[in-house]
Amino acid sequence: MVTASARTYVDYRVSVAYVGTVLKFIGITPAFPFVLSLFYGEDPLPFVVACVVMVLGGGLLEAVDSGGDLGNREAFLLVSLAWLVVPLAGTIPYLVAGTGSVAGPVNALFESMSGFTTTGATVLEKISVDRHGHAMMLWRQLTQWLGGMGILVLMVAILPELSVGGAQVIDQEAPGLSLEKLTPRIQVTARALWGIYAGFTVLAALVYYGLNVAGIAPNMGLYNAVAHALTTLPTGGFSPEARSMEAFVPAVQWAVMVFMLVAGTNFALFWYVLRGDPRELIDNTEFRSYLLAAAGVGALISALLFAGVGLSGTPENVGTIVGNVENSLRQGLFQAIAVVTTTGYASMDVNTWHPVAQTTLLFAYFLGGSAGSAAGSIKIVRWVLVTKGIDRSLFTSIHPEAVRPIRLGKEIVDDETVRDVFAFIALFLGIFVVSTVLLYLDSLRTPAVTLSGLDAMSVAIATLGNVGPGFGDVGPMDSFLQFSDLGKLYMTFLMWIGRLEVLSVLVIFTPSFWRS
Amino acid sequence: MVTASARTYVDYRVSVAYVGTVLKFIGITPAFPFVLSLFYGEDPLPFVVACVVMVLGGGLLEAVDSGGDLGNREAFLLVSLAWLVVPLAGTIPYLVAGTGSVAGPVNALFESMSGFTTTGATVLEKISVDRHGHAMMLWRQLTQWLGGMGILVLMVAILPELSVGGAQVIDQEAPGLSLEKLTPRIQVTARALWGIYAGFTVLAALVYYGLNVAGIAPNMGLYNAVAHALTTLPTGGFSPEARSMEAFVPAVQWAVMVFMLVAGTNFALFWYVLRGDPRELIDNTEFRSYLLAAAGVGALISALLFAGVGLSGTPENVGTIVGNVENSLRQGLFQAIAVVTTTGYASMDVNTWHPVAQTTLLFAYFLGGSAGSAAGSIKIVRWVLVTKGIDRSLFTSIHPEAVRPIRLGKEIVDDETVRDVFAFIALFLGIFVVSTVLLYLDSLRTPAVTLSGLDAMSVAIATLGNVGPGFGDVGPMDSFLQFSDLGKLYMTFLMWIGRLEVLSVLVIFTPSFWRS
Ligand SMILES: [K+]
Ligand SMILES: [K+]
Repeated sequence: MVTASARTYVDYRVSVAYVGTVLKFIGITPAFPFVLSLFYGEDPLPFVVACVVMVLGGGLLEAVDSGGDLGNREAFLLVSLAWLVVPLAGTIPYLVAGTGSVAGPVNALFESMSGFTTTGATVLEKISVDRHGHAMMLWRQLTQWLGGMGILVLMVAILPELSVGGAQVIDQEAPGLSLEKLTPRIQVTARALWGIYAGFTVLAALVYYGLNVAGIAPNMGLYNAVAHALTTLPTGGFSPEARSMEAFVPAVQWAVMVFMLVAGTNFALFWYVLRGDPRELIDNTEFRSYLLAAAGVGALISALLFAGVGLSGTPENVGTIVGNVENSLRQGLFQAIAVVTTTGYASMDVNTWHPVAQTTLLFAYFLGGSAGSAAGSIKIVRWVLVTKGIDRSLFTSIHPEAVRPIRLGKEIVDDETVRDVFAFIALFLGIFVVSTVLLYLDSLRTPAVTLSGLDAMSVAIATLGNVGPGFGDVGPMDSFLQFSDLGKLYMTFLMWIGRLEVLSVLVIFTPSFWRS
Repeated sequence: MVTASARTYVDYRVSVAYVGTVLKFIGITPAFPFVLSLFYGEDPLPFVVACVVMVLGGGLLEAVDSGGDLGNREAFLLVSLAWLVVPLAGTIPYLVAGTGSVAGPVNALFESMSGFTTTGATVLEKISVDRHGHAMMLWRQLTQWLGGMGILVLMVAILPELSVGGAQVIDQEAPGLSLEKLTPRIQVTARALWGIYAGFTVLAALVYYGLNVAGIAPNMGLYNAVAHALTTLPTGGFSPEARSMEAFVPAVQWAVMVFMLVAGTNFALFWYVLRGDPRELIDNTEFRSYLLAAAGVGALISALLFAGVGLSGTPENVGTIVGNVENSLRQGLFQAIAVVTTTGYASMDVNTWHPVAQTTLLFAYFLGGSAGSAAGSIKIVRWVLVTKGIDRSLFTSIHPEAVRPIRLGKEIVDDETVRDVFAFIALFLGIFVVSTVLLYLDSLRTPAVTLSGLDAMSVAIATLGNVGPGFGDVGPMDSFLQFSDLGKLYMTFLMWIGRLEVLSVLVIFTPSFWRS
């Protein structure tokens, strides 16, 4: 039970015990790739081991319980720990299988953290289901799907014991300002969100597979349809195709764009739509700004591609772009939507782009999708508030006595929230700057990685913003494998704090967290 | 007189009249290059015409006066207009002389705005006093010196009629949060600041020339000593040497570093020192953070240069850097100080650096010197407040009921100020992002300019942050000449709004400024 405890110390055992519960339930999920491994005649052992270790390990951690209440600080600790322990446990299939570039502990952790945080940056070489196995690739996809709507939101949805005061826990996990309370009961809210999320996943799989059945997309078989649905809705981006969405026909790419846009939308708005109130979605300020941002970035890049100035070479496999309305529009919009929603799919190799188009796209990495969605990075609603904050400062500089509350839709946003939004963005940008320099320096130790200044920035924001691929050696058709272990561990750290929106994690490292 | 007028319209005639007064007084200053032109036997006409046009034009504008009071909004208008009209008038010598690349109207305006705003970005080709004349080069330097401590602060210092309520006017011109009131009488404060500024300029000239007299710096003659003093103290960077500080021996470079650091310090602190209170300087939070920032960036770059990874080629004219403690330390610190203070001098061509060192330096462009100094960009004190704001948000996330005011030294900074600081930074970064894309796109129209993504960012922040040179084609040994007229006019706009810290100018373009 979550209470505003007056305890003067942090009862970390309560947090650890809850992490155990989370681990135990997540430990059931390797059953899916296990079944698939039997079906395809692949090695089932990695998933059996994962199941056993996670369920037993979770049970052991549960035994640490002090029996105390889950207070504010224990909730912080629980969220951060859960997002560290689950990705750690998620490495087990990779480690037990022992094949491919993810067999080493650092690479396995990178891939697992990239999965659960829906980042989609990969260290997997020569991606293909034939090489790595259908079951193992499903596990990779499943990590993204589990992380998408929030591990703890899922726990609140299924566990009665977390339902009483779980709001605080999932608030710290939910992307954006705070989780919208759809109903007075948090468990009902959590179930609604996960239900909508699962529903859209099924719908995406049906649409993708439907294009195959209709004879339009020959390579979008059932496996591929499910795999891409599982990695679209969480804005994940782990495609089982080495060349991502470039491998598919335009019709598939347009369909994926629609589902990426769905995935980057506040899922609470769909709940209102389902209850017969579509205006809640259509009139929503963040939703409109989000579509406008994606369309604006996409239109600009499309125009550059259409005119030819957006290219620095002749891209292969994608046909004529210059002067071709449909192709340039599709490529520009696809990459813009993939980045704004932080999905990180690609329909062409952005390394064939002129740096002017890359630079434009790089700035879009900082936007982020909507609050309450599966998207990462800064989130559009924060930028909306920043714009309103700037407007207020302009106004009060000429009318110093004026009191202008900031509104979002019909509601007034209190000053503390606006303050925290600015602080979050500043901290996020500060970490981006420091990380760019550190990762750039680290790359100098590795002859296999050569980065331009723009590339180095893309490495930092692609991981911190949970977008996935960047530019240059970490482009959408490349991998992060060649980085040093230290570099990859640091990026794993960035994905972790990025998913939990930085403050929720960093607060644990402040001395005042542990003092009374 | 400045009053909190209850007027419902903007009495723009009052603002225009004051601009006329400013122009009239600035119109006296071409007398200095005029005298020098007679001494060197150069053409005196450009300065005579400038004098006549500015004094007469100023008189005409004064006649527009409505006789009304200078209210809050009239003060805003006055500051923005003065910083547009004076640089416009400053083009007269370039236009009348009609020689060199600054003879065209767009180039002349770029150079003049770059001068007064102490940006130091140049469109002058083949810089040398022999080619362009000692007098003309003095005018170029003088524009920086006049702009350095603020044109309107200068006016308040010398004009009794502005002294009563000039605080509001110079607050909007002063870099940083607001001008520190050293004495109850604003005119005394303005005189103190300009006096200290002039005093340091004389001292710098003496030290520079002293190195020549002592036989250490053969090429630092009297003209060069004065020229560099006039462009160091305003953090200007307009060196009469084509290769900036690379042209001088290490002793000169070390001396220039010291005076750049002085120029980027809050001049109010020197006033306290002169009054026998050195602790006001030594214990000042912003001063310490400022030194730390410059030293930190400098040390990192020095280490990179020393180890050789900071270089991408073999720099000419500067001797051995790799493995040479003094040289690598000097080059790293010089460039860091030149950028953090926004002076923009260079002791070597940063285009010989590896992009990892350039990227590090690029981030330092956003720091800015101290409030109340001649430096541009965001300013260290704002970053100090941002850090404290982040710290507060971390603290209140675990102690939601806590009320933690933000302190700077012993004083509490009110929430509106903190709010405005965040809004300013967000607006500044937003303009940087949009400007990078626009200027990059514009550069594609010009075959003579080829920019990497990093270079394009450097163009935007070098002008918006009033730093001066950037990287690549706009490096410290290059010029902005090859850009299109549209591009150069846009950069002129950026220098203008950058000098007045964006909000002060942009507020004029809001509808609510002109309404009641
Ligand atoms: K992603
Ligand atoms: K400068």
